[in-house]
Amino acid sequence: MPSRKASYWDYIRVEDLLALQSGIDASEHDLGNDEVRFIVIHQVDELWFKLVLRELTTARDLFARHPVPEDRLAGAVKSLQRVTICFELAAQHFRLMETMRTQDYLTFRDKLNPASGFQSAQMREIEVLLGLDDQDRIPFGNEGSYLDALKSHDGSPSPAYERVTKRIKDGPTLKAAVQEWLQRTPIHGSVPGDAGDEQAVQDWIDAYFAGHEKLYERALEHAVKTQALTGPDEERLRMRYEGQLKGARRHFEASDVDADRRAWVRRLRAAILFIDSNRRLPLLSWPGSVIDGLIECEQAMLAFRQRHARMVERVIGRRIGTGGSDGVAYLDQTALQYRVFTEIWAARTLLLPPDLSPSVRNRDFYGLAHDA
Amino acid sequence: MPSRKASYWDYIRVEDLLALQSGIDASEHDLGNDEVRFIVIHQVDELWFKLVLRELTTARDLFARHPVPEDRLAGAVKSLQRVTICFELAAQHFRLMETMRTQDYLTFRDKLNPASGFQSAQMREIEVLLGLDDQDRIPFGNEGSYLDALKSHDGSPSPAYERVTKRIKDGPTLKAAVQEWLQRTPIHGSVPGDAGDEQAVQDWIDAYFAGHEKLYERALEHAVKTQALTGPDEERLRMRYEGQLKGARRHFEASDVDADRRAWVRRLRAAILFIDSNRRLPLLSWPGSVIDGLIECEQAMLAFRQRHARMVERVIGRRIGTGGSDGVAYLDQTALQYRVFTEIWAARTLLLPPDLSPSVRNRDFYGLAHDA
Amino acid sequence: MPSRKASYWDYIRVEDLLALQSGIDASEHDLGNDEVRFIVIHQVDELWFKLVLRELTTARDLFARHPVPEDRLAGAVKSLQRVTICFELAAQHFRLMETMRTQDYLTFRDKLNPASGFQSAQMREIEVLLGLDDQDRIPFGNEGSYLDALKSHDGSPSPAYERVTKRIKDGPTLKAAVQEWLQRTPIHGSVPGDAGDEQAVQDWIDAYFAGHEKLYERALEHAVKTQALTGPDEERLRMRYEGQLKGARRHFEASDVDADRRAWVRRLRAAILFIDSNRRLPLLSWPGSVIDGLIECEQAMLAFRQRHARMVERVIGRRIGTGGSDGVAYLDQTALQYRVFTEIWAARTLLLPPDLSPSVRNRDFYGLAHDA
Amino acid sequence: MPSRKASYWDYIRVEDLLALQSGIDASEHDLGNDEVRFIVIHQVDELWFKLVLRELTTARDLFARHPVPEDRLAGAVKSLQRVTICFELAAQHFRLMETMRTQDYLTFRDKLNPASGFQSAQMREIEVLLGLDDQDRIPFGNEGSYLDALKSHDGSPSPAYERVTKRIKDGPTLKAAVQEWLQRTPIHGSVPGDAGDEQAVQDWIDAYFAGHEKLYERALEHAVKTQALTGPDEERLRMRYEGQLKGARRHFEASDVDADRRAWVRRLRAAILFIDSNRRLPLLSWPGSVIDGLIECEQAMLAFRQRHARMVERVIGRRIGTGGSDGVAYLDQTALQYRVFTEIWAARTLLLPPDLSPSVRNRDFYGLAHDA
Repeated sequence: MPSRKASYWDYIRVEDLLALQSGIDASEHDLGNDEVRFIVIHQVDELWFKLVLRELTTARDLFARHPVPEDRLAGAVKSLQRVTICFELAAQHFRLMETMRTQDYLTFRDKLNPASGFQSAQMREIEVLLGLDDQDRIPFGNEGSYLDALKSHDGSPSPAYERVTKRIKDGPTLKAAVQEWLQRTPIHGSVPGDAGDEQAVQDWIDAYFAGHEKLYERALEHAVKTQALTGPDEERLRMRYEGQLKGARRHFEASDVDADRRAWVRRLRAAILFIDSNRRLPLLSWPGSVIDGLIECEQAMLAFRQRHARMVERVIGRRIGTGGSDGVAYLDQTALQYRVFTEIWAARTLLLPPDLSPSVRNRDFYGLAHDA
Repeated sequence: MPSRKASYWDYIRVEDLLALQSGIDASEHDLGNDEVRFIVIHQVDELWFKLVLRELTTARDLFARHPVPEDRLAGAVKSLQRVTICFELAAQHFRLMETMRTQDYLTFRDKLNPASGFQSAQMREIEVLLGLDDQDRIPFGNEGSYLDALKSHDGSPSPAYERVTKRIKDGPTLKAAVQEWLQRTPIHGSVPGDAGDEQAVQDWIDAYFAGHEKLYERALEHAVKTQALTGPDEERLRMRYEGQLKGARRHFEASDVDADRRAWVRRLRAAILFIDSNRRLPLLSWPGSVIDGLIECEQAMLAFRQRHARMVERVIGRRIGTGGSDGVAYLDQTALQYRVFTEIWAARTLLLPPDLSPSVRNRDFYGLAHDA
Repeated sequence: MPSRKASYWDYIRVEDLLALQSGIDASEHDLGNDEVRFIVIHQVDELWFKLVLRELTTARDLFARHPVPEDRLAGAVKSLQRVTICFELAAQHFRLMETMRTQDYLTFRDKLNPASGFQSAQMREIEVLLGLDDQDRIPFGNEGSYLDALKSHDGSPSPAYERVTKRIKDGPTLKAAVQEWLQRTPIHGSVPGDAGDEQAVQDWIDAYFAGHEKLYERALEHAVKTQALTGPDEERLRMRYEGQLKGARRHFEASDVDADRRAWVRRLRAAILFIDSNRRLPLLSWPGSVIDGLIECEQAMLAFRQRHARMVERVIGRRIGTGGSDGVAYLDQTALQYRVFTEIWAARTLLLPPDLSPSVRNRDFYGLAHDA
Repeated sequence: MPSRKASYWDYIRVEDLLALQSGIDASEHDLGNDEVRFIVIHQVDELWFKLVLRELTTARDLFARHPVPEDRLAGAVKSLQRVTICFELAAQHFRLMETMRTQDYLTFRDKLNPASGFQSAQMREIEVLLGLDDQDRIPFGNEGSYLDALKSHDGSPSPAYERVTKRIKDGPTLKAAVQEWLQRTPIHGSVPGDAGDEQAVQDWIDAYFAGHEKLYERALEHAVKTQALTGPDEERLRMRYEGQLKGARRHFEASDVDADRRAWVRRLRAAILFIDSNRRLPLLSWPGSVIDGLIECEQAMLAFRQRHARMVERVIGRRIGTGGSDGVAYLDQTALQYRVFTEIWAARTLLLPPDLSPSVRNRDFYGLAHDA
């Protein structure tokens, strides 16, 4: 404990903090309330992003361990919940931003050019740390990559550029670490490397796919029985169900990925469905909550992006963005397309109702010592 | 005042209300918490929608008057704010819905088929009353129109069908009424029918367009001066600015609408920009707030739809909807495309910064008696 | 699965639902938007309260089992989270209520008299089911008990009266059930009835109290060292710390309860602190989350009450309530004083920092089968 | 426009901002996520408070003008709405703070001593600028005043102390400025200094008080007619109504204030009720919104304080605060007792239903030029 006597102003660094709102002008005195508010909201976002990065790093470090200690999973769930809350809080700020009318913003917008929210290094770091693939990024109008947009005007590395490139090197991503961990999940009590593990995984997948066949049969029967479908409507529905079943088969066979990764991906997909279908088993209860936490995080981030697009549309309409992007249309596109935990989202479409979900072998393996 | 002694249970109709949660089963006793919650959330949404319809009707009735009494505009703004709040409240319910895991929902989902949220008559009524054009609707998979989806299984008119068809007949829409009122806005103190009104409108439009030319020139100059644009990037930016200027011209000339409606649309568009640029004038302050209120309402409804899509994706993934739609993808599409107050949104893109905004003639016309 | 073809309007009972907003008038047609909104908000609250009662009953039924199956605790946590969300949603409605100006409310307030929100049977049922003690209730102005306020005007039992009296008979309360379960928590691996259980509990309490002595000593030392305390300020601080230590001792000794319940209360209090201090142990992780869930629920209910008081103050000021209460002052009083999980709240004040928290004997007892 | 090329990182001062989270330690590296989050949340609060101070100052400067230009009132309403939003956003952060468990906080709490949120200079500045009277402050345990708590440990003026003392000198308060402006409101078309102004005010007050007499008579009659009141209950109710009527008379007569200020306070009180009862008149519509905005601000600040108390209670229970206060109990007390706009709150209790509200003379005085 420091012998120094703490004061709120030293601890929170209040004076230093409150001296950072002059933008690119010499003094805050020349700025109107609208611009100071505009600056403050972005600063608050950056502060939340800092917390997001800390929590995601903590979670990533945990899942990168081998084995991951079971008694730390509740902590990881809490980290993910905090990330969710940070994005929810950040999404709330748009209410305040929207109190600025279009004309108010236009009084200082031009001088910002070409500064742009796309240059927020921490937002890019979050995407990198989560595991957004570079090839999934949508170019935003200029020639260069998203990294080029972070360079200084003379092309030299800016602090933002350095942050992001450093983050790119600091692997693994949360996605990679989590998937490794999920992929090792005991299925019917068997873990990778166990004799018979492949068979255990195959048994689970076969039983699960059989459940899907029953599910679609049942749904179609019900639709035919209860709805006055026209012939073409019935045919259309049947086609769609068959499409979904075919999609399910492709998923379980992992035929969409390269042959050398196929076994690994199959086990990963089987594991996600195994956890999500059996989360009342004590050993799987916190892993189930981790899955929920990841879905929540990504949903919150998506909602933040959509809310951002709405605010921009409301304040400036469909103008070209200061950074040179297509503005609102670009934001709406990235919101829906930037997905990280695609394997976990895919499982949502494939979960079976409890009565069709296969039963688990070796249940004792998943229990508490106390019950044993 | 009724002489009857009021009690909370009579006034709120508590017992009748709490007897409506048995779904299609004989008794609520057979239902689990998940299904009762599912039913209740939809009921609460319907209750909010009822309030939305009442407030929108009140606002519509006001704007359909001729002239619209100025001292009622603050009341209309409040009505619109209530609509916004209702959609915001309804959007909050998805948090509660999402506490239901996929498997929990699947235990009762099949029996709902083909019932679907698309059959919510009030939601359709809201769209109709607002003024969503039928040709802007996106078909959701089956052959029929959205009205067919509201018919009973034997093809007879359901209560939902009757509600919506009745609403369709009960014109005008809010959009039509508001646009008529906006279109009559005094411009430079001149109203439709005044001698010289066409010239007053044209003067305002000319001055406004000249402001746009200066705006883009200035923006491009600034971009060239401050950014290390590559040749192709500069060209791309110039093209986009020219595209926006061309769009502005098309807007002011109303060349996108039929010749017989052109003068009316031109005056409407001029009026919206006139109000939004001069809302500090007392006569225009509440009309300005009406414009904000309409934007807020539509934004809140859009946000409600997007939040709905997120909830559906989280709970059931990308399955086919119970009503036969494409599910999430359909919801995301309607969220972004169902727009009503397109003329008002368009103005957001065209507003000028105060220093480029034309000045107003006849300012006294817009003042208070007291100042005179 | 019913063979009946489901429609949204049948399933949600839309028409029945939308026919319940006429208050005490013959027809809704005579009512203004303000009164219909007032009615709807109360109805929505009643619908949330219905869900609250269902979730609390589910949780209560679980904790009343003996033993409580460990694999159901995550479900109980979810039930408690739903209760929290319901209160948070209900608290949001006040925003909508507050769009009604005082004068608008006064146009129909008189006819409600003596109907009052105090007559909400479900709110009283929630309090009863949670376990609010009758002697902790604050009388609200009239002579009778809260039950009398629920009787019909002729003194006969109303539906509200019947709901609440039935609920009172339907024990145990959630508080009682949870406390029984908590009190049985293994401490140092020992459960009630085990030989040496009393000693195990005493050991834990002794070690815990010793931690408290160190805590206060340390805090006082630090204060003296770092603060320029005046003599009287130092004395005042010392007295307060001593008061807190004395309070801690009374808590651990349970000297505030009757002698015949003392051993039971001591074990309960020890158990709460044992769980909360050691929740990383797998067997205690979900019990720890249950404790958090109860705190959250009660906090959300308190926040709902305080938000209610703020809305009332804003809309009607400090008038006498329709039910005859003191209005706002009464609401603020109940908000702060109606506490149910007092033993769990008390533990918040007594938790030790990790470095002073006693270590656990028999850690393996609290582990997973898999790790064994 | 600066020729300097703007970048996001320069404009937002990202690197400077993200270097301020090391608390009283040499490096952030030594801090856990909990402490960094604790620091960040306080910093975000300070940033919102900065915006609050800017908006309140803008509003204060406006109301301190004489006359206050009518066309700026809508802007003042927007300033007040922003203050409300800032407090609502700040209140949301407690959700994030509450993810920190008691034990997590205790790991670093001691070293903060005696730093305390009470030392937030900006919060004190907000209270001062609003116009909280010094004699209304509740002492928080130590000997000194709230200003002493802001001094450095050696007694010298800290930056916090300087901020607050500077603010105290920078009058007038918002309350004083607003009350001066409200007090000048034309009543029946008469302003202070007009011949007959006193009579106009008196007429309004007399008519208003007569409305109150009718209101209570009517309410009591209705209660007697519809409720089965026991004799003592009826007597109790009558006494309370008489108490309220007596309170109303005291209010209108301003017998609670010194004789020399009585006429001024009477006119102020009359003016508030005059505005709030007649806000559909164009000249009074924005003043009416100002009144609503002040009520909303103060309610939001109160709600922020209450939410703060709940968070503190949840995280640390009822311990002594780091600043030496009584902790939660102190926070709850200040939340309910720190009121600034007491005259405006008082009017809520005294507003009459429209049918009892007196009519306005000289209505044309309050109209638009256009209608004239």
